[in-house]
Amino acid sequence: MPVYSVSNVEDLRICVVMVGLPARGKSLIATKIVRYLSWLSIKAKCFNVGTYRRLQTIHPSASFFEPDNTEGEKLRREAAVLATKDMIRWFEEENGVVGILDATNSTVERRNWILQICREEGLEPMFVESWCDDDEIIMHNIIEVKTRSPDYEGQDPEQSVRDFRERIRNYEKVYQTLDDESLTYCKIINVGAQVIINRIQTYMESRIVYFLTNLHIRPRAIWLSRHGESMFNLSGQIGGDSDLSPRGRMYAEQLPELVRQSVGDAPLTVWTSTLKRTQQTASKLPYPKLAWKALDELDSGVCDGMTYEEIEEQYPEDFKARDDNKYEYRYPGGESYRDLVIRLEPIIMQLERQENILIVTHQAVLRCIYAYFMNVSQDQSPWMEVPLHTLIKLTPRAYGTEVTRIKANIPAVSTFRQKGSSAKHDATPQTTAELHLSL
Amino acid sequence: MPVYSVSNVEDLRICVVMVGLPARGKSLIATKIVRYLSWLSIKAKCFNVGTYRRLQTIHPSASFFEPDNTEGEKLRREAAVLATKDMIRWFEEENGVVGILDATNSTVERRNWILQICREEGLEPMFVESWCDDDEIIMHNIIEVKTRSPDYEGQDPEQSVRDFRERIRNYEKVYQTLDDESLTYCKIINVGAQVIINRIQTYMESRIVYFLTNLHIRPRAIWLSRHGESMFNLSGQIGGDSDLSPRGRMYAEQLPELVRQSVGDAPLTVWTSTLKRTQQTASKLPYPKLAWKALDELDSGVCDGMTYEEIEEQYPEDFKARDDNKYEYRYPGGESYRDLVIRLEPIIMQLERQENILIVTHQAVLRCIYAYFMNVSQDQSPWMEVPLHTLIKLTPRAYGTEVTRIKANIPAVSTFRQKGSSAKHDATPQTTAELHLSL
Repeated sequence: MPVYSVSNVEDLRICVVMVGLPARGKSLIATKIVRYLSWLSIKAKCFNVGTYRRLQTIHPSASFFEPDNTEGEKLRREAAVLATKDMIRWFEEENGVVGILDATNSTVERRNWILQICREEGLEPMFVESWCDDDEIIMHNIIEVKTRSPDYEGQDPEQSVRDFRERIRNYEKVYQTLDDESLTYCKIINVGAQVIINRIQTYMESRIVYFLTNLHIRPRAIWLSRHGESMFNLSGQIGGDSDLSPRGRMYAEQLPELVRQSVGDAPLTVWTSTLKRTQQTASKLPYPKLAWKALDELDSGVCDGMTYEEIEEQYPEDFKARDDNKYEYRYPGGESYRDLVIRLEPIIMQLERQENILIVTHQAVLRCIYAYFMNVSQDQSPWMEVPLHTLIKLTPRAYGTEVTRIKANIPAVSTFRQKGSSAKHDATPQTTAELHLSL
Repeated sequence: MPVYSVSNVEDLRICVVMVGLPARGKSLIATKIVRYLSWLSIKAKCFNVGTYRRLQTIHPSASFFEPDNTEGEKLRREAAVLATKDMIRWFEEENGVVGILDATNSTVERRNWILQICREEGLEPMFVESWCDDDEIIMHNIIEVKTRSPDYEGQDPEQSVRDFRERIRNYEKVYQTLDDESLTYCKIINVGAQVIINRIQTYMESRIVYFLTNLHIRPRAIWLSRHGESMFNLSGQIGGDSDLSPRGRMYAEQLPELVRQSVGDAPLTVWTSTLKRTQQTASKLPYPKLAWKALDELDSGVCDGMTYEEIEEQYPEDFKARDDNKYEYRYPGGESYRDLVIRLEPIIMQLERQENILIVTHQAVLRCIYAYFMNVSQDQSPWMEVPLHTLIKLTPRAYGTEVTRIKANIPAVSTFRQKGSSAKHDATPQTTAELHLSL
């Protein structure tokens, strides 16, 4: 019997149809939905109509988007047809669950055309509109995002902005907001100041809506750190609840200054797990602290407290099975990375809503959180090297997340074991300068 | 460091202000919010203005509610003052987190008065409006709920309905729906067909909104069963991943017929944990099945696989500590009931949205799910007796949940140990007829 995540229990195929004028953050929203669902192992993909259009017309000018430009209208409709066909093929051939049609879809006529296709293909249509009349947000979007769009590649930025505003005006002439109460939709007004939810029927839709209502655009950052080196790290044992090693305690002493240099005077909250090594690591930090059971290390079940050498010896088949599929492998009586992601989902939801947070946690947990923000695949995330005694800063931006690493100059053992390598534990400390995040 | 649940990380006191005409399900919504938050260990309480009013006027007639009945208006305002004062005292003396003012609060004037109080007392106001123009729903509410209200105790039902409709008309004359965009509010239209969310700022508010959007009123039931008797049950060991005993297998054989008699031809989905004993128990059921890691038994950490006698011998202090506070006690390397509730929260959220579900799970998990639906306190829930080989049916109704127990006539050992009792395991099977749920 397969193990299911929070959001994957209905046998549905959902077509999310983005609606909104240009520069309303539609693609950003679509990208975030795909990242969130993919992280939860729900097959999701975005089909951007603009990309298909650009295959036909490299640098369209605003006049291309005029409602009475029949040639432009014909080409734009063809692009929509191509994107939709690809989406339907993806649903069928790759067992897609949530496909997103990313385009303005700004008229009732266009939306009815999509509804018709959904009906024919057995897809549940869910409209997501981003509606905004705040000029500041719109100009910010135009400058930050749109003038970097492939449509304006190599062109004068000022001219691009002018042209783009013209393009928006053309869409505005025919724009019709969502108001058909028979449809399933979520209308996000002024980046979430108000949200209208209509006829949300399924759990999957309600998860998407809940995710959308938690997104915010206030600037903030998330800091991640593993606990300092522990006594179990020294002996090469996994799991357990050991104290910090002397070098681990040095890291705890140094952490407040590392954090202060990166955070400055901004407010910060520290989250730890319930295990001693993370709480000891955070003990000197002068910020409010919360302990979460959900941040505890991946449960290694019967192997808890063993070294990799002992596991290889006592459970050779499990050791190999884990190497073959580390994401799915579940320790007997313990957890897999997939289990861990499900356990971390409420943490991610809360992180999306929060301001500045520092999380002091464990290797596997940190890999999963990092994978969410950096969109790392499930093949790769369990194998990421996350060194000890290193503070990682994640800054979410419009198109991706910036990473900064700040290393404490305190040596530590490496707890990283490469796929297929022997289980031999190396107790020689490495200075952090020798360690690199392989990202 | 205290361990926090999903929803308890901001240092806020929230005043939820219900808004809506009579018979719009306000009290039901308020009760559900309180039950949900209390289950998550978030201190929440409802202050029903009608209760305070009834202290003054036992059976008010509709004319009491006429807008120009100055005496009535005065008394209703006094009742609101008393409820609000009690709420403020509760916030201060009992460290309340979410207080709910349950009244019609149907005018801007009345709401401004509450806003003023919130400002003075440092409370975050959050309005929750139930708006409904579906006559069928309203009449259903009036007949099912309101004519059973203390206001109409001992009166002719038909006369009560007439009087109540008159009372609603009096409120309608002055009713003003929420539309002030500067307020934090959630407006539920026609029992969730549409929901408008405005200026939701904090995570706690977003949790309440998410909960509200998952509620539905379609009739359904939830069936609960422990796995059949396992080999570990026979030997008195806890945890582990053992197979069913011969009697447990008999229960698995009989379960389809028990379920069929209770469910009839209605559609059903079966949820199990990832452990063998629940999957073996469900193996003969002819319905779609899903396995959830979140439904696995409470993790007993270092005590996994031990008998209570062994735990008492090897960890006498832990054994006693668990008796003293079973809800908070966490097995070394394992979980507490509090941890379990946090792990189960997404399951509850999904249950609220779903139709008919049968959950085959474990003693502690079943206690927590049961505690949610039956509003059982944290003192009592870990001590509830949940016998083996018994199917429990929960039917949520407007004011509470109905319970039906269906016993398979297959004996099983009792795994129930009373507080303060010795750790002695009794391997004598009891017929289920001797067992009783102490609820």
